[in-house]
Amino acid sequence: MSLAPFPRAASETGDPLLLTPGPLTTSRSVKEVMVHDWGSRDATFLKINKAVLERLPEIVNGAGTHVTVPMQGSGTFAVEAMLTSFVPASGKVLVLINGAYGHRAKRILDIAGRATVVHETPEDTPPDLAAVEAILAKDPAITHVFAVHCETTSGIRNPIEAIAALVARHRRRLLIDAMSAFGALPLDAAASPFDAVAASSNKCIEGVPGFGFVICRRDALAETKGNATTLVLDLHDQWQGFEKTGQFRFTPPIHVIVSFHQALEEFLAEGGVAGRGGRYAENGKVLIDGMRALGFETLLPDALQAPIIVTFHMPRDPAFVFQRFYDGLKERGFVIYPGKLTVADSFRIGCIGRLYPKDLHAALAAVRAVLADMGVATPLARAA
Amino acid sequence: MSLAPFPRAASETGDPLLLTPGPLTTSRSVKEVMVHDWGSRDATFLKINKAVLERLPEIVNGAGTHVTVPMQGSGTFAVEAMLTSFVPASGKVLVLINGAYGHRAKRILDIAGRATVVHETPEDTPPDLAAVEAILAKDPAITHVFAVHCETTSGIRNPIEAIAALVARHRRRLLIDAMSAFGALPLDAAASPFDAVAASSNKCIEGVPGFGFVICRRDALAETKGNATTLVLDLHDQWQGFEKTGQFRFTPPIHVIVSFHQALEEFLAEGGVAGRGGRYAENGKVLIDGMRALGFETLLPDALQAPIIVTFHMPRDPAFVFQRFYDGLKERGFVIYPGKLTVADSFRIGCIGRLYPKDLHAALAAVRAVLADMGVATPLARAA
Repeated sequence: MSLAPFPRAASETGDPLLLTPGPLTTSRSVKEVMVHDWGSRDATFLKINKAVLERLPEIVNGAGTHVTVPMQGSGTFAVEAMLTSFVPASGKVLVLINGAYGHRAKRILDIAGRATVVHETPEDTPPDLAAVEAILAKDPAITHVFAVHCETTSGIRNPIEAIAALVARHRRRLLIDAMSAFGALPLDAAASPFDAVAASSNKCIEGVPGFGFVICRRDALAETKGNATTLVLDLHDQWQGFEKTGQFRFTPPIHVIVSFHQALEEFLAEGGVAGRGGRYAENGKVLIDGMRALGFETLLPDALQAPIIVTFHMPRDPAFVFQRFYDGLKERGFVIYPGKLTVADSFRIGCIGRLYPKDLHAALAAVRAVLADMGVATPLARAA
Repeated sequence: MSLAPFPRAASETGDPLLLTPGPLTTSRSVKEVMVHDWGSRDATFLKINKAVLERLPEIVNGAGTHVTVPMQGSGTFAVEAMLTSFVPASGKVLVLINGAYGHRAKRILDIAGRATVVHETPEDTPPDLAAVEAILAKDPAITHVFAVHCETTSGIRNPIEAIAALVARHRRRLLIDAMSAFGALPLDAAASPFDAVAASSNKCIEGVPGFGFVICRRDALAETKGNATTLVLDLHDQWQGFEKTGQFRFTPPIHVIVSFHQALEEFLAEGGVAGRGGRYAENGKVLIDGMRALGFETLLPDALQAPIIVTFHMPRDPAFVFQRFYDGLKERGFVIYPGKLTVADSFRIGCIGRLYPKDLHAALAAVRAVLADMGVATPLARAA
């Protein structure tokens, strides 16, 4: 079975399409703006950076009340900065876990010597809000709640609005990891109070990787002086640097930030969260409908599925070999991500980044071709 | 006095030339390779990253004995990672300070709760090695010595070989911040023992900013498990991630790393440290000779001056206004850096990055033109 008649998919810059939870396929223009040099303390760059910092709170309806503190590194650097800057040594965090990113937050807090209590549910199950409420009611030492908006581990959309309401009712502070959700799923700081939300450059805003950011309620951030356990991850100090000089304390990833500025322009031109999230929802629908037509089953019911990344059960057919499936898709121009679930033998396909429904249709055609190459009959037999 | 007849300098990509301590002017090719997308766990990127990690120890004659641990963020992230990973809670560090970067290391250690003792000399003065020896001889609790190879604050070249010999003789461990020296000044791990040396992507290798790296003596790194005070800055954990999977634990700045790979190729093509350092030495000589001919005086005697960045005393002539000098040079395509010395009223001009002697000659012509515009007579009266 020759591959010859099958067209190889490619991005605007000739690269394989990334059907992953990020880093993602980005537009050519987002990358082309990086072909320049800027001084890190020079007015030209500082103006671009300021525009980025000012626009981000608007995306979560936080203009006027919230400020952005960027953090060099990656999303996890921003999450560690958020946790170790907002939670004081005397604090205690209720960590809501249903995947790898909840576990990672717990590990960060353990290393920093911050007290925690955990509410864990399986990777396909949102937190039990009644149980969360009971924990908060019973333990007055808990100062903060940590939640993940979309757990990329499974692709589950956690009920962040209900969590925020519950946390506010119990007068605790909410810290959110919205890494893969930010810009695609709505989040409203006025309706769903939070002290801070962390995200990164290389997810749904469709920039390239190299920094994270934390959108902080200004009044809450102002209380965090001296909390941090490091110099570089100290959000309060980083914020004060901008307030005093408009500059980063330490060398910023200038090219990545300029690229992110371009990505933000394209995000706004697409209609912000409604437009970007709408396209991803269409992508997700094409993907899920098409995969189901082939007999694949999603881990999550549609009500829990975020339009970010979709987890599919491994087919039972012994002719299906995941590595061949992965390689076959890559040969055809589609890079998917192997799952890392403990709850189920599965794999994952993302639907975010510079991808359109036509690209997901093409990916489905590639899936069909690879299954045929492997001799896997469709529709598949039920998974398990 | 019209600017019209004066040609405006520009880099290969039309940008002002950065005569700063970095981020620097880089080649067009170093930036153009970023106009692609890669998956962070995909073989194509992992191969490029592996090549980067393997080549760096060769630059300090550490192939076989030393390993590279990259650190997302910036040079200071790498320094904090080095200090908080290598120095255990029971450790004590002798910090050699003669500028801002020595002070920064001290602050990092203070925040991390690591004991320190300081040997500080003025910004134009190298450490007093007899005093250092006396401190080490007297205080057996000292486990590590921290030194800065080239203190960018003044541009001073600290005697790293003599420091390394002294530290080894006293059986202590040496940690080096070689940020602005790495790739331009020789450093030989076999002749001058150290446990770790930190540098970054955007200095003398001439990449773009976005990550730092620590070149670690493998046997010393292996002893650091559990020392770190954070998750993201844990060098041992980051290293183990590469050993086990070849991958970063957390999203890497892919584009910046691919760009750095290209920068390394160009560095090697130029003849490595000898070639790169040789060009910078020529640049520095052109700059210093030319400025002295105009009557400017350097802060440092030639024997202490590294060919990285040169500090000049402010002229006494009241017609010399630094902001006009800075702006006038920028209008002519040269971005310099204001000094931040406490020892002297001064300004700084860098001679590293994609600059050649012809560019420094052009910068001198611009200096002459700006002085003439300001009505400053040359040669200048003596500074003070």
